[in-house]
Amino acid sequence: MSEHRARVRELGIDPGRLPTGEGNALTDVPGVAVGHRTVRRGGPDDEPCLRTGVTVIDPAIDRNVYDAPVTGATHVLNGYGKSVGLPQVDELGQIETPIGLTNTLDVWGVADAIAGRVLDREASVTSVNPVVGECNDGVLNDIRGRHVTAAHVSEAFEASSTSNAQEGCVGAGTGTTGFGWKAGIGTASRRVEGHVVGALVLTNTGKPADLRIDGLHVDRYVDGSTEASSAGGSIMMLVGTDAALSSRQLGRVVQRTGLGLGRVGGIAHHGSGDFAIGFANDRGEGFADSALTPLFRATVESTEEAIYNSLTRAETTVGGDGATVEALPLDPVRRAVEARESGSS
Amino acid sequence: MSEHRARVRELGIDPGRLPTGEGNALTDVPGVAVGHRTVRRGGPDDEPCLRTGVTVIDPAIDRNVYDAPVTGATHVLNGYGKSVGLPQVDELGQIETPIGLTNTLDVWGVADAIAGRVLDREASVTSVNPVVGECNDGVLNDIRGRHVTAAHVSEAFEASSTSNAQEGCVGAGTGTTGFGWKAGIGTASRRVEGHVVGALVLTNTGKPADLRIDGLHVDRYVDGSTEASSAGGSIMMLVGTDAALSSRQLGRVVQRTGLGLGRVGGIAHHGSGDFAIGFANDRGEGFADSALTPLFRATVESTEEAIYNSLTRAETTVGGDGATVEALPLDPVRRAVEARESGSS
Amino acid sequence: MSEHRARVRELGIDPGRLPTGEGNALTDVPGVAVGHRTVRRGGPDDEPCLRTGVTVIDPAIDRNVYDAPVTGATHVLNGYGKSVGLPQVDELGQIETPIGLTNTLDVWGVADAIAGRVLDREASVTSVNPVVGECNDGVLNDIRGRHVTAAHVSEAFEASSTSNAQEGCVGAGTGTTGFGWKAGIGTASRRVEGHVVGALVLTNTGKPADLRIDGLHVDRYVDGSTEASSAGGSIMMLVGTDAALSSRQLGRVVQRTGLGLGRVGGIAHHGSGDFAIGFANDRGEGFADSALTPLFRATVESTEEAIYNSLTRAETTVGGDGATVEALPLDPVRRAVEARESGSS
Amino acid sequence: MSEHRARVRELGIDPGRLPTGEGNALTDVPGVAVGHRTVRRGGPDDEPCLRTGVTVIDPAIDRNVYDAPVTGATHVLNGYGKSVGLPQVDELGQIETPIGLTNTLDVWGVADAIAGRVLDREASVTSVNPVVGECNDGVLNDIRGRHVTAAHVSEAFEASSTSNAQEGCVGAGTGTTGFGWKAGIGTASRRVEGHVVGALVLTNTGKPADLRIDGLHVDRYVDGSTEASSAGGSIMMLVGTDAALSSRQLGRVVQRTGLGLGRVGGIAHHGSGDFAIGFANDRGEGFADSALTPLFRATVESTEEAIYNSLTRAETTVGGDGATVEALPLDPVRRAVEARESGSS
Repeated sequence: MSEHRARVRELGIDPGRLPTGEGNALTDVPGVAVGHRTVRRGGPDDEPCLRTGVTVIDPAIDRNVYDAPVTGATHVLNGYGKSVGLPQVDELGQIETPIGLTNTLDVWGVADAIAGRVLDREASVTSVNPVVGECNDGVLNDIRGRHVTAAHVSEAFEASSTSNAQEGCVGAGTGTTGFGWKAGIGTASRRVEGHVVGALVLTNTGKPADLRIDGLHVDRYVDGSTEASSAGGSIMMLVGTDAALSSRQLGRVVQRTGLGLGRVGGIAHHGSGDFAIGFANDRGEGFADSALTPLFRATVESTEEAIYNSLTRAETTVGGDGATVEALPLDPVRRAVEARESGSS
Repeated sequence: MSEHRARVRELGIDPGRLPTGEGNALTDVPGVAVGHRTVRRGGPDDEPCLRTGVTVIDPAIDRNVYDAPVTGATHVLNGYGKSVGLPQVDELGQIETPIGLTNTLDVWGVADAIAGRVLDREASVTSVNPVVGECNDGVLNDIRGRHVTAAHVSEAFEASSTSNAQEGCVGAGTGTTGFGWKAGIGTASRRVEGHVVGALVLTNTGKPADLRIDGLHVDRYVDGSTEASSAGGSIMMLVGTDAALSSRQLGRVVQRTGLGLGRVGGIAHHGSGDFAIGFANDRGEGFADSALTPLFRATVESTEEAIYNSLTRAETTVGGDGATVEALPLDPVRRAVEARESGSS
Repeated sequence: MSEHRARVRELGIDPGRLPTGEGNALTDVPGVAVGHRTVRRGGPDDEPCLRTGVTVIDPAIDRNVYDAPVTGATHVLNGYGKSVGLPQVDELGQIETPIGLTNTLDVWGVADAIAGRVLDREASVTSVNPVVGECNDGVLNDIRGRHVTAAHVSEAFEASSTSNAQEGCVGAGTGTTGFGWKAGIGTASRRVEGHVVGALVLTNTGKPADLRIDGLHVDRYVDGSTEASSAGGSIMMLVGTDAALSSRQLGRVVQRTGLGLGRVGGIAHHGSGDFAIGFANDRGEGFADSALTPLFRATVESTEEAIYNSLTRAETTVGGDGATVEALPLDPVRRAVEARESGSS
Repeated sequence: MSEHRARVRELGIDPGRLPTGEGNALTDVPGVAVGHRTVRRGGPDDEPCLRTGVTVIDPAIDRNVYDAPVTGATHVLNGYGKSVGLPQVDELGQIETPIGLTNTLDVWGVADAIAGRVLDREASVTSVNPVVGECNDGVLNDIRGRHVTAAHVSEAFEASSTSNAQEGCVGAGTGTTGFGWKAGIGTASRRVEGHVVGALVLTNTGKPADLRIDGLHVDRYVDGSTEASSAGGSIMMLVGTDAALSSRQLGRVVQRTGLGLGRVGGIAHHGSGDFAIGFANDRGEGFADSALTPLFRATVESTEEAIYNSLTRAETTVGGDGATVEALPLDPVRRAVEARESGSS
């Protein structure tokens, strides 16, 4: 769907200092699979007009995560959001299901569906803690219709892949908006001392004038943004790693997502539900605190870049009642990068 | 259903020092309504055998809570639980829907149902944060069947009343177990300097030998408890008041529920999801910090007494596969109280 | 000093269900030393009249804690207090110095003195995080004079011992008051599955009518308490263990101190600085979450019993301006215990 | 001292979108005074060589803050630091003394001195909670000597002024280092809808390659930075406002400082103690949550700009053993700004 849209690196920008993982995606973390089910139905004159979906992230495909949870941690930058399952992650430092992302009003249905999958598989289980985040895609989507079903969740799992680097208007990102432009899913990764840190974001926050891409004030170069209604907004920031972090260490890592959002210019406005969720799928022998700084930098950089990709890969979308959110024009950004490079040489 | 079971005061015990509200219940707080929908179907040999339900607490029946939220706060004593909606309460200091209580695996369905009720009523709403707590009633109930429906939620609201002091095996308390005995819903209240503090608990935690009722070590006087499987457990503790507290002050109030649980002997075991949720339905002119101590005491005392009532009012229940949880025998407790009173005179 | 005052077990009370450690004290945790420097000078007519002191707890005497910190965690039950060093413990999950306890206004001086000891020993250190808690002993002590010196801190270390079970009016407990009676230092311990959990408290909180000792409502049996001015108050609750807990697990453990305080009847009043600090001095191979419940019970019980000892071991004290705080009369408690035991048989 | 060094706006940069306050400083908030006592003694060959100091911020000079505290809140971005007094601010939502800033090892002495000033003035006070933050200036300063005295604290107060916009190597900033350059104190402010938000930072964190000034990657234009030893680091970020925020609202505001640090490129490395402290000195009639977003933006922008000023105003400093930290060269930055402006026109 988003084949003609570029990743930020194709614009000549290499955010940060660290090398990327092979696919520059969350799925570079060994054992991680990502799947999207885009729910898109009807045109701008139809009722309902659906521009939504669900994204699932399996943090450890090589094992039964319910029996052998991954280490988990969360950070709340701005808690104006309905994310499900965070308190138990905070208490136990574990995540025992795949993580879901969807729209605000389908968050409980998706949680129920993810729980149902565990119940179906585990005959004696009577307790399970699905973790699901959400963004409000109501600008483009008939969000009140709660159109994401358990079947959609299953299809997202069936579509999962360890090499999935789909971005933009896919899954939960089908209908979201960021910095006044069409946004969606974005991902990136960094390699640090034998480990991979990957980020996947669902962007739905920010004003046009706040956006800076690798320092470039984008609003100076482009026109056509949507000054979205301020009520909604949100960003979900997922971080995964194969470093054998404790939940405390992982909590410190995921808090750095806010610094990545800061580089992009975000201010976490009042109505924005800005949550970070992290997992570490190697529960091995421990990790020295003194070696955390590279992981912090990797988290800042991969979050930053994932947000860029969530914009540069998303396509102009027309939703219900003809509401249109334009894709960020890439050529002006490309030219600005080129001008900067020639200027600084 | 629980007509022959006594409240703890009928056993000769007046926990604490403060006077109770008129009904000694959460509904003594002006504007608060409580409703239960007990979901009980089938006998011990039937499959499925349902011993569950849903309880709803409307914190301010005299107004549209979505438009004019009550002040809200939470406290996590042990976060091994699936409670929904807490992060937004923590961020905004508000609760914008009635609060639901149900079993562990119906928590998302009940959240979805409460959200749906808001959507049905408010034509333009695209964001709503239902708050739902849960306990695991799987010892007696076919919890894996997820039998609580949106219709049940509606019926709980229809059954709501501002004078509801139903306790024991009602609503979400239909199938829960506490301190080795059948438990369920309990409530109590205190009056302090022109204000009311009320508590409502859903008890599903504790070992028999830990239980103390107003200081009496109950296990010395009674036999027949169930040494429940340790996997589950939980206690949901709701506190309401008409004092015009800020969310910060209310957060301090709800944290005192743990001291009430401590008086009862609880230890908040690893697998117990022990959450407190508070609301203040007068968003008036402010409250002096220096006047908080009586509210703290009222919270400790009403939580303590509500837990007692959740036990003394619950009836022996036979669930699926013939699992039986006995009601706490009241006569031995009554006699122990009498012996103590004569001894201390 | 407190030789004629009994520990609570000498009154016929065995709080809880678990066996105690050998000395029923925090120092039962291998490698833990406790030292007190009581600062007591002048009579009731003298100015200044000193009834204060400092207590130091070395969590691992067998190693340089600065180089090899113990695992640490804190819990704030009521943060109206000046405790020093907690944020870094929360971030790093470590404690790198001995822990100090003193009066409210000497907390910074004692922190500086503990830091100074590290600087003296470690030639290249430029960063150290002393952890110091405090209670307000201003009812009996000339607290405004800030009489605790660095020399006193050194003397507390010199007096340290791994078999120290001094209680009552020693060290930081010299001038404190609890539940209307003279209080001070108390300690207790429990053995659980190959590990020891020990508590040491500095009690300075509570109203007479709230006090219950193992369920006995003490105010029904005794007279002569002091209705202390409500401004002050506090309780510092230290928990140590040799179980190889992670900081997250230890945080869950120390939160249970509140349940122990609840058993005693505390309400954590507005002006009370109620902090818990925990350490685990074995940084070994990890501990299963599922095995935590016995440690939780051990923490509740040892905190509960330590508070009792902080009262039963403290002696009537006359302070400045003739202010007198009576010791809790023990004979009435002993008789009440006997009456209860004969009544329940 | 820093007269020849420019504020960032003099380089042609206007960070953000909002208008500044009159002096573009924290002291633009009515009633706020700032004072510095620079402690500088000895040359590079002397022992000790002092490059340190103390900064005091009075949040409400027009009243007795002890009697009428300002609203307070804190946020911990990375808690590897010794800041004093935060737990009570978190509990009560108040700050009752001026705030101090100093070096890491003088933090307890400065806290004691600030407390002492309250005791001297208030004859009956026995409890006071000074709030003091710190950064480690050990690269340039003889930090182990703990040279900041109570007299220095008094002199900082005597030097306080409501029009103080001193920046760079003053007070607590005398010896700090940031992003590989000499750093120190920086300040900035923004006006939003009738209110002022001001920030004052003490910068001591960051690597050269991370620094971006309003999006410019500074390391592409300048040479000569110091790759500081990674052990230390820290940034203290103070935010003040005259908006009548609740402590919960203020807590949300101060959390946005991290987004400002993110814009500058900070990653909050492991050894960096990154704390934010906020105050609101109008305890008036309340503030609507829905009006918070402009204050959030103001906080991000003023924090960002204050950090720039803490660099651009600091001067090359030679400390003990000849350690030298260069000032950030301003001409290359100025030229890069000009090139960008001509390029984007």
